[in-house]
Amino acid sequence: MTDAPSADADGSDEFAVPADERYFEDYEAGATYEFGTVTVTEQEIIGFAAQYDPQSFHVDPAAAQQGPFGGLIASGWHTCALMMRLFAEHYLPTAASLGSPGVDELRWLKPVRPGDRLRLRLRVVETRRSRSDPRRGIVRTFAELVDQVGEPVLSMTVVSLLLARGGDQDLPTAPPASG
Amino acid sequence: MTDAPSADADGSDEFAVPADERYFEDYEAGATYEFGTVTVTEQEIIGFAAQYDPQSFHVDPAAAQQGPFGGLIASGWHTCALMMRLFAEHYLPTAASLGSPGVDELRWLKPVRPGDRLRLRLRVVETRRSRSDPRRGIVRTFAELVDQVGEPVLSMTVVSLLLARGGDQDLPTAPPASG
Repeated sequence: MTDAPSADADGSDEFAVPADERYFEDYEAGATYEFGTVTVTEQEIIGFAAQYDPQSFHVDPAAAQQGPFGGLIASGWHTCALMMRLFAEHYLPTAASLGSPGVDELRWLKPVRPGDRLRLRLRVVETRRSRSDPRRGIVRTFAELVDQVGEPVLSMTVVSLLLARGGDQDLPTAPPASG
Repeated sequence: MTDAPSADADGSDEFAVPADERYFEDYEAGATYEFGTVTVTEQEIIGFAAQYDPQSFHVDPAAAQQGPFGGLIASGWHTCALMMRLFAEHYLPTAASLGSPGVDELRWLKPVRPGDRLRLRLRVVETRRSRSDPRRGIVRTFAELVDQVGEPVLSMTVVSLLLARGGDQDLPTAPPASG
């Protein structure tokens, strides 16, 4: 195991090794991270929703004004995708990521509107080596997307499967993770 | 309350009223539905992932061949977005949808690959009128996305907030749902 991560000025930790040298052992329960921001535009909200979630309060600014949110809001799945961009770019290892079997308690807490600036707050909840295959480990991470006034708009617990150091010598061909 | 939904030839039910006349009362625990298909292409998989989940097994076909899945697979969030397209187009009411507070037990069960044809299977798990605002109701739906060989690739339980019939006379301005 590596040493405990060192704390940054804002209270969040930093990884000791870059993403392409990072493995299961570099994730420690209790460590916290903060990444971002990502900004969402009206054009991107409408583009995503037109393809995947064409409800009027996601695609039609005029109708959305009269709707339940009093204006256009992002699809909840779009918000998840924005979370994932920061999660993949800053938190996941590049060579050692084996996908995800799932997410628990996904919550859309506050509508996301055009112009919102979002940052990602993470806390490692649990890490354990796989019982069926000790070349890999499971990391559970509590993730919150927070807006420019400091309020959470999204939270979830993400399960990640990661390769352990040296475990890529003989990769299994059918890993259980799929996402 | 309306009558129980009538069963279709494939065993799934049909809504008695079209989407724009459908309200909370039209959703009944135990009803099952099946919608689709939607087909996913390599180009769409790469396009989504390049923007939201740029891991090599989602964006780089050559690297993906050598990766843990032996080929390119869709981002799990892309699979969720494809689920949502069918959910929004066929299941949600158009005027009475008030968004969603969240999802439980989201599971990516099998990798989704270019060319996969997916259909959506739904079962209404629970419906109840809101205690705090009887003009609306909560519907819990178990959703499965199933591929062309009949295997589930994604499952989750979606919570939907819906307006009750006649409840749109005096809409509250700050609904609790956000997604």
